[in-house]
Amino acid sequence: MLLRERTNLGSGMMVAGLSVLALVSWASWVGGAAPSALTHQETAHPHLTIYYWPFPARAHSLLSMCAVACAPCTHVHSYDRIAAVASANGGSMEGGGVGDTFAPPIVVDEDNQGFAISQSVAATLYVGQRLGFDAAVPNVPKSVQYMVDLADFLAQIPGGEGPTLIFDEELGRKLAHFHTSGRFDAWMQNIERSIIGPYYYGERVSYVDFYLNQVLKWIYQRIYRQIPGAENVFGAYPKAMGVQASVSALDVTTCPVLGSPFPLTTSFPSPDEPFSKPFLDTLANTSIFR
Amino acid sequence: MLLRERTNLGSGMMVAGLSVLALVSWASWVGGAAPSALTHQETAHPHLTIYYWPFPARAHSLLSMCAVACAPCTHVHSYDRIAAVASANGGSMEGGGVGDTFAPPIVVDEDNQGFAISQSVAATLYVGQRLGFDAAVPNVPKSVQYMVDLADFLAQIPGGEGPTLIFDEELGRKLAHFHTSGRFDAWMQNIERSIIGPYYYGERVSYVDFYLNQVLKWIYQRIYRQIPGAENVFGAYPKAMGVQASVSALDVTTCPVLGSPFPLTTSFPSPDEPFSKPFLDTLANTSIFR
Repeated sequence: MLLRERTNLGSGMMVAGLSVLALVSWASWVGGAAPSALTHQETAHPHLTIYYWPFPARAHSLLSMCAVACAPCTHVHSYDRIAAVASANGGSMEGGGVGDTFAPPIVVDEDNQGFAISQSVAATLYVGQRLGFDAAVPNVPKSVQYMVDLADFLAQIPGGEGPTLIFDEELGRKLAHFHTSGRFDAWMQNIERSIIGPYYYGERVSYVDFYLNQVLKWIYQRIYRQIPGAENVFGAYPKAMGVQASVSALDVTTCPVLGSPFPLTTSFPSPDEPFSKPFLDTLANTSIFR
Repeated sequence: MLLRERTNLGSGMMVAGLSVLALVSWASWVGGAAPSALTHQETAHPHLTIYYWPFPARAHSLLSMCAVACAPCTHVHSYDRIAAVASANGGSMEGGGVGDTFAPPIVVDEDNQGFAISQSVAATLYVGQRLGFDAAVPNVPKSVQYMVDLADFLAQIPGGEGPTLIFDEELGRKLAHFHTSGRFDAWMQNIERSIIGPYYYGERVSYVDFYLNQVLKWIYQRIYRQIPGAENVFGAYPKAMGVQASVSALDVTTCPVLGSPFPLTTSFPSPDEPFSKPFLDTLANTSIFR
């Protein structure tokens, strides 16, 4: 079921129990105490500008929180404007900021004196707090651990990160080892145990849930959906799948992000080229997905 | 000057101005409002158990904060006891915890119902808050950005991470490229601009300063101090050097950590073998350190 949007949830369920879960009105999952996030009106939310490339990837959780909260958020995705605020590209912050944001995603909060923040984990924490998605979080440092765990999981999966990866036999061997060594399962079980259910912190969605959706969608769309037999790679982790499906369902029923060229149904674009035969053959020979 | 401990600061200064800075009584840098950290007495600090290998590395900032605050901290470093709490090794938390701490460093707070947290950035935030090193921090998400920036810098330097790295010609080429491409300088300038001075947030030390000390010490001791001509690789970044020297000076004048087999003068052990000639020749040929 992972990555199917809410409108598609009526057919082809891979995990029967979750279809019911995901078809429940999404509003009930947000919890009753955040009405401003549910009215589809612009409220007192800050105006946020999110600088990121023209696909979601590391900005997915940021854009998604804005969409679900109906916050007046602008997605700026031209190279020149990103370079103007990213110090890795020589930029300093517009409006006299300190120039200590290295690379996108970069969030500028127009209603907090142009405060700027980068790094996806830190920015997700900031935007989550600004938009009220922190109400369920009892302990901020532990929430940071959960997000860094997810970022580490993404970084450690061979083929997960990097725009120029070549899906060749060597990468296939590494990905096979990631599974046969038990590392994939160890990470996912750790993530699964972190989740109370249905969301990380129970009944109410938090910024950590948005971050999980970003990372699992990315991994799935980047790698597994293109590997025969791997469609259900997250099937053994129903809590994580539940979070991912529920947050995805929120995305598509709420407000668009200004200026964004893509829908939030995609976290990371698929590689331009289909996976190579040696890559797929290597995985098939290890039988890791049977 | 980087990595010379306070006791050595009287000789061989590479940056003249900083010698005076570092020789000022360390107590004045901590700030006047945290007396419990300055009395060398056990106060109301929580008892923390820090699970990490028998060298500082990613636990350096945690151990260092405990030492400076004189908090009753125990460093547990046997493989078996670490494996018992790290889910990557099959462990679940002692005392009935949730088993969602993947790998060391792992901190268990005996005085917070055995609360457990992992990931160096998240754990540094938690311990920093528990021991009062958050008083100067105006914005927690931004402090998380600063620490993830430092972790990214460490991860991106070829040879910075990984116990099994081979310092061969290929790694030499990558390290040379990291400098000649401007990436090293772009990161360090970004870090430099993040620091108000003398500490990240001005006059008072914070957990972010401890994290910087951990990362820059690690990088220096792992790589640069063994490369002829690279001793002063951080010389162009006086604010970062100032933070590092000042935090190092705090370490050595305060309380020991129970059970820890090493002094906090070392963050990361040097490689067992000297760097290979092809590695050093590759760097020398690029003249990056002249």
